[in-house]
Amino acid sequence: MAAPDTVVNIESKFEKVEGLWSPHIVAEFNGMHVKLARIDGEFMWHSHEDTDEVFMVHRGSVEIQLRDGVSTILGPGDVYVVPAGVEHRPVAPGECELVLIEPAATPNTGDRATAASEPWI
Amino acid sequence: MAAPDTVVNIESKFEKVEGLWSPHIVAEFNGMHVKLARIDGEFMWHSHEDTDEVFMVHRGSVEIQLRDGVSTILGPGDVYVVPAGVEHRPVAPGECELVLIEPAATPNTGDRATAASEPWI
Repeated sequence: MAAPDTVVNIESKFEKVEGLWSPHIVAEFNGMHVKLARIDGEFMWHSHEDTDEVFMVHRGSVEIQLRDGVSTILGPGDVYVVPAGVEHRPVAPGECELVLIEPAATPNTGDRATAASEPWI
Repeated sequence: MAAPDTVVNIESKFEKVEGLWSPHIVAEFNGMHVKLARIDGEFMWHSHEDTDEVFMVHRGSVEIQLRDGVSTILGPGDVYVVPAGVEHRPVAPGECELVLIEPAATPNTGDRATAASEPWI
């Protein structure tokens, strides 16, 4: 486990991310996890009932579709918050590297039964 | 105030950051603030008693000195967590742009009496 006060280089850590749609944890603070994920194509519609989710694009682009709202295309250096309870779906037109920040143990699918396990790297 | 589900482009937002050592808020999630600050030179020694602080370097470099520990130099793309209660001091050898993440209303000096006010941009 990457302890606090260890340097986490995002570029280097992405080399350790295996698979698509599989968040890997790189840091923890105030009960939150900073996670890296590589995505491509479209994910399932889902929401996180009680927790906001931060998307930061490291490389590539992703469209954050909202079931009941405007869809938004994010590129490198863009930050976006999906509020708790808002149904959303990330869709990437090609490979995209994301930094995600949300409370520890938040299931990536919104449902513990289908959620990915999230290893520390 | 930048609402959730608004795109925040870090590069563009840095153009609106005025002054040194003055954190500007760009996003809020789960009671946390994402803030941008431009720094140069050395800050005061301080700690945040109950809250971890995340440093992410956007441009330039900064040394995070710990009173009772190893000092660490961070460059672009590096992420570092200063745990709650740990006395620290950022020192930048030149102008450095930082993304900071910590609980809303955390005083930047560790002390409300001397803390900067932190505007939304």
